[in-house]
Amino acid sequence: MNEKLKSIVDEIYNEMKKGQIPKVELKSRNKDNIVFDNLSGVWKYGNNTVKRYASKTNSAKSILKMLYIIDFIDEMEQDLKTSTLREMYYISEGWGLGKFESQDESDMMTEDLEVMTTLLREEMRLRPEESGASVIGNLTLKEMNRKGEWKEINCRDDVGDAGYTIPYNVEPEKIQFVSEDVDFVLAIETGGMFDRLVENRFDEKMRSLLVHIKGQPSRSTKRLINRLNKELHIPVVVFTDGDPWSFRIFASIAYGAIKTAHISDILATPNSEFVGITASDIVRYELPTDKLSDKDIEALHAELEDPRFNTPFWKGEIETMLNLGKKAEQQALAKYGLNFVTDTYLPEKLKEIGII
Amino acid sequence: MNEKLKSIVDEIYNEMKKGQIPKVELKSRNKDNIVFDNLSGVWKYGNNTVKRYASKTNSAKSILKMLYIIDFIDEMEQDLKTSTLREMYYISEGWGLGKFESQDESDMMTEDLEVMTTLLREEMRLRPEESGASVIGNLTLKEMNRKGEWKEINCRDDVGDAGYTIPYNVEPEKIQFVSEDVDFVLAIETGGMFDRLVENRFDEKMRSLLVHIKGQPSRSTKRLINRLNKELHIPVVVFTDGDPWSFRIFASIAYGAIKTAHISDILATPNSEFVGITASDIVRYELPTDKLSDKDIEALHAELEDPRFNTPFWKGEIETMLNLGKKAEQQALAKYGLNFVTDTYLPEKLKEIGII
Repeated sequence: MNEKLKSIVDEIYNEMKKGQIPKVELKSRNKDNIVFDNLSGVWKYGNNTVKRYASKTNSAKSILKMLYIIDFIDEMEQDLKTSTLREMYYISEGWGLGKFESQDESDMMTEDLEVMTTLLREEMRLRPEESGASVIGNLTLKEMNRKGEWKEINCRDDVGDAGYTIPYNVEPEKIQFVSEDVDFVLAIETGGMFDRLVENRFDEKMRSLLVHIKGQPSRSTKRLINRLNKELHIPVVVFTDGDPWSFRIFASIAYGAIKTAHISDILATPNSEFVGITASDIVRYELPTDKLSDKDIEALHAELEDPRFNTPFWKGEIETMLNLGKKAEQQALAKYGLNFVTDTYLPEKLKEIGII
Repeated sequence: MNEKLKSIVDEIYNEMKKGQIPKVELKSRNKDNIVFDNLSGVWKYGNNTVKRYASKTNSAKSILKMLYIIDFIDEMEQDLKTSTLREMYYISEGWGLGKFESQDESDMMTEDLEVMTTLLREEMRLRPEESGASVIGNLTLKEMNRKGEWKEINCRDDVGDAGYTIPYNVEPEKIQFVSEDVDFVLAIETGGMFDRLVENRFDEKMRSLLVHIKGQPSRSTKRLINRLNKELHIPVVVFTDGDPWSFRIFASIAYGAIKTAHISDILATPNSEFVGITASDIVRYELPTDKLSDKDIEALHAELEDPRFNTPFWKGEIETMLNLGKKAEQQALAKYGLNFVTDTYLPEKLKEIGII
């Protein structure tokens, strides 16, 4: 069993043996205890902790459920299995008093275990159903497949035009980088634009690794981008639609989220750059636009208060968008033809932010 | 240029040359002209046609837009490009009077061209943004990649655990089957269940080709299943959640949809089998359930009127579900552990429907 998980069990066991009331202790997940760390540029936990004593029925039940989960993880480890969070919720039907009331409860407890152990839930063999990013470009990696063998894959030459799909777990025990020959990672929001850049062979022409993040990126997608940046020192550039929700996609890749503050270090990539679509691009390239909805406007105002957007660049772009009252999609660049994005827009913008 | 597209242009040209008012003629897309063909088990068009004469401003504009599209397709053919439907809508910004009012209009006209030519829009180089199915199993195919080279891929040995992702176009000019060694195709609704069967190596143990259809399947997914069944004679089995929306997923794979009645022959697979989750399974396996919502109940009642469900099996299952007032997910089978679905449920059910 994983040492960190074992130490939780050991502590409870020892307390009971000594006749003490068993407890678990973890960092407080209260919002007051989650702060934006300006130095590292990500959300982090403070030092407040909470203790849950088995002297109350609810806490006792919650400790029991946690022990059931740890036992389940141990069982999966022996059988080389993994489980979706949903499957674990259903499996708890057989856990008597340990049965979860709802998947929200079991998901929350999985996060508690992450906070306590600093292990990713994926390392604990628990995973969401989200599908991972598609990747195309000259990166060779090896994946530990379900048969327990390392399989080497070049993400440009060994795949079809839909690219290589990353698995739910991209930790080194599952994915290792073998070699690469790219100058930057381009994380792309929409499938239409990803396919456009693939068809236009932007990965080859601009020596880039194209990553289709499929809207709000999954944890494994963010983790892959983090590893590419941290281990291989490849700069990361994010390319999204031009609207408040897409700005949040950038923020979540660069600075992480409150919900995952305990694992910001391994999920966020604070030196990511944003290439567009910006509000200034809408004006500069006279892009076809849609009117901002009331929800869009509300989201932009919320972003003005969000510490992740507290820079002159972002404040300027958000205010420009509010003044314009307009948003635009990545694919709006097609106004100037199918090659405009790869021949003109991206080279111009990437030069401006110093990537090429 | 494609012959079928050229003949549309030729006809308009000849009419104008003869001093006649140019027109286009296509099968009526009125619902009255779309009938469920009990013999072939799919939706089909009747023989009513409509003519659009350029003597009315609206029809003249619509003919102009159609000519712009055909010209755009021809251009893409020469440049070896494709375009998303969204990109074409934006590109029409530069078409003067040919500019589309909305993407609904350009999408509709693309369908008109499909009805007139019996070409798929994918063959006309126009595609949606939907991502295609993931496939795992012992099927070797070759894909014509963006460089114009055939790339051979075995969907079990040459891919990671996330499988091979099919491209937007699976016509023989893009995808050809090389060899296979599987007894049936299992089309799976949810990612969680697909991953479960992959991890449990159901493809190897039961000689099956696992296809993750990702909810309501895209056209390319349905077309791939159709080709596997028609060309390679592999039986198709559909495995979904047990609720009215999942029943519709089965119906759309097996019998097609009204919207795509003009291409039922190449999208639908009428001899597909449904393995579950059925309402009877909920009772038989005592599965964890959720209560049917008002919308669920409404959908089930609509299905009782739908010709695609006009069989004793479906009428029985729909009525059982209404009587139970319950629905269940595929993953609810995890109540009995992670191996129950592959060791017990699927073998039992597949035997009953005569697949194994």
